Amino acid sequence: MSRDSVKVVKIGGHVVDSTEGLDKLLDEFAALEGNKILVHGGGKIATNISAALGIEAKMVEGRRITDAATVEVVTMVYAGGINKSIVAKLQRRGVAAWGICGADAQIIPAIKRPVKDIDYGFVGDVLTDSINNQALQMLIGSGYSVVVAPITVDAEGQLLNTNADTIAQSVAVAMSKIYDVELIYLFEKSGVLADIADDNSVIKLISHENYPQLKSSGKIFDGMIPKIDNALLAVDSGVTGVRICNTLRVDAGTLIAKI
Amino acid sequence: MSRDSVKVVKIGGHVVDSTEGLDKLLDEFAALEGNKILVHGGGKIATNISAALGIEAKMVEGRRITDAATVEVVTMVYAGGINKSIVAKLQRRGVAAWGICGADAQIIPAIKRPVKDIDYGFVGDVLTDSINNQALQMLIGSGYSVVVAPITVDAEGQLLNTNADTIAQSVAVAMSKIYDVELIYLFEKSGVLADIADDNSVIKLISHENYPQLKSSGKIFDGMIPKIDNALLAVDSGVTGVRICNTLRVDAGTLIAKI
Repeated sequence: MSRDSVKVVKIGGHVVDSTEGLDKLLDEFAALEGNKILVHGGGKIATNISAALGIEAKMVEGRRITDAATVEVVTMVYAGGINKSIVAKLQRRGVAAWGICGADAQIIPAIKRPVKDIDYGFVGDVLTDSINNQALQMLIGSGYSVVVAPITVDAEGQLLNTNADTIAQSVAVAMSKIYDVELIYLFEKSGVLADIADDNSVIKLISHENYPQLKSSGKIFDGMIPKIDNALLAVDSGVTGVRICNTLRVDAGTLIAKI
Repeated sequence: MSRDSVKVVKIGGHVVDSTEGLDKLLDEFAALEGNKILVHGGGKIATNISAALGIEAKMVEGRRITDAATVEVVTMVYAGGINKSIVAKLQRRGVAAWGICGADAQIIPAIKRPVKDIDYGFVGDVLTDSINNQALQMLIGSGYSVVVAPITVDAEGQLLNTNADTIAQSVAVAMSKIYDVELIYLFEKSGVLADIADDNSVIKLISHENYPQLKSSGKIFDGMIPKIDNALLAVDSGVTGVRICNTLRVDAGTLIAKI
């Protein structure tokens, strides 16, 4: 029996922060055919609200720490303000959108990040193998497009601030047990560039075959390395392909796939 | 075929505002057997956050107005902060809780309240007949307890601040097409009192039969009249019984029923 397919699309905080950018992206998301899940990041709103409430941003060794007050604010902003605003905007575009955060029905269970050198506070590491696929499948199978806020919960009912890239990847891997899954990271550039100064130098395909050479030649470097590492991990774990691009209109950008 | 039953429990803002009161109530809700839906009000948190953000509370003729900035704040606070905090607290108590607001899957569609004398702003009047029963039934039928935040959405994708009592009543009436529904309003007093000074004077049963006399004798007056009117309307519309009480431990308080 051929399997149904699902697209998991991740949009970052910079998209959420721009009304115009978000509207354009949601137009494109609404036009996507088939089953789809949208994972959104946080953006600057939470920082602004924390500041207004007098909650100081805590940093340890340059890393942001999520204390108890901050996890309350990000839960409000991500799972409430941003999530429901996107749900409503999608409904305006004819999409049967259903917003969740990872805590609902413990769809995305996590553990509080173990303390090694730094205690990140209430930050979640997703338990990919324990994702509640049944709940997601129930929504998707009923024709709903799921909008996911990057908040998770641990077994003790502690809400946890969680990286949206990680959530998108974990959901994609978990759903690949049931569906053919394409994972799409919306990105500010048109793809992974061979020449960072040239937006037309998009590398069309990255696989285990050409990746070592792309790294050793210095074409892929810095922050892009963990992104590609994770994308290849997703592909190795069952995701059909990972796309890094700046539009959903066409199959543009960089595809990370088995070949 | 005998029908399944559902309890719809509404808790007000004063419960949400008290950590101790909320914990006690959630203990009781967790212990309730069978299908259950919890509708929660807002509380003072939204007012405090609005104040911190410099959003002035707008009042017209003594009525609070929900302007665009305020509906954003209440969406954050009710559908994000309070809703997910209750979901997590229930999960800690072993309940398979799933949080929604009325906008998710347009479960609770509404219209912006028509302007007569006062423009209340972004306030929703629920379209009870259009409630997405199928979505609620899907969650309940899969064993989830649904936690509902009092935010709704109109057909144009505008989020609307909506009275939690009204939402509880509308959900109860809509669900009574499928289930035997008991609607329970958690209240600060132990029930509807025949003598407001005596907490032991709970009126056990109110029906169309004794209600006129209770009103004419002055035992039910002021703010309690619309509550009882609405409860009787719910009962006339298919809800099995409406209970007004201060605990879920026993079938205490006042029951409003057909007889």
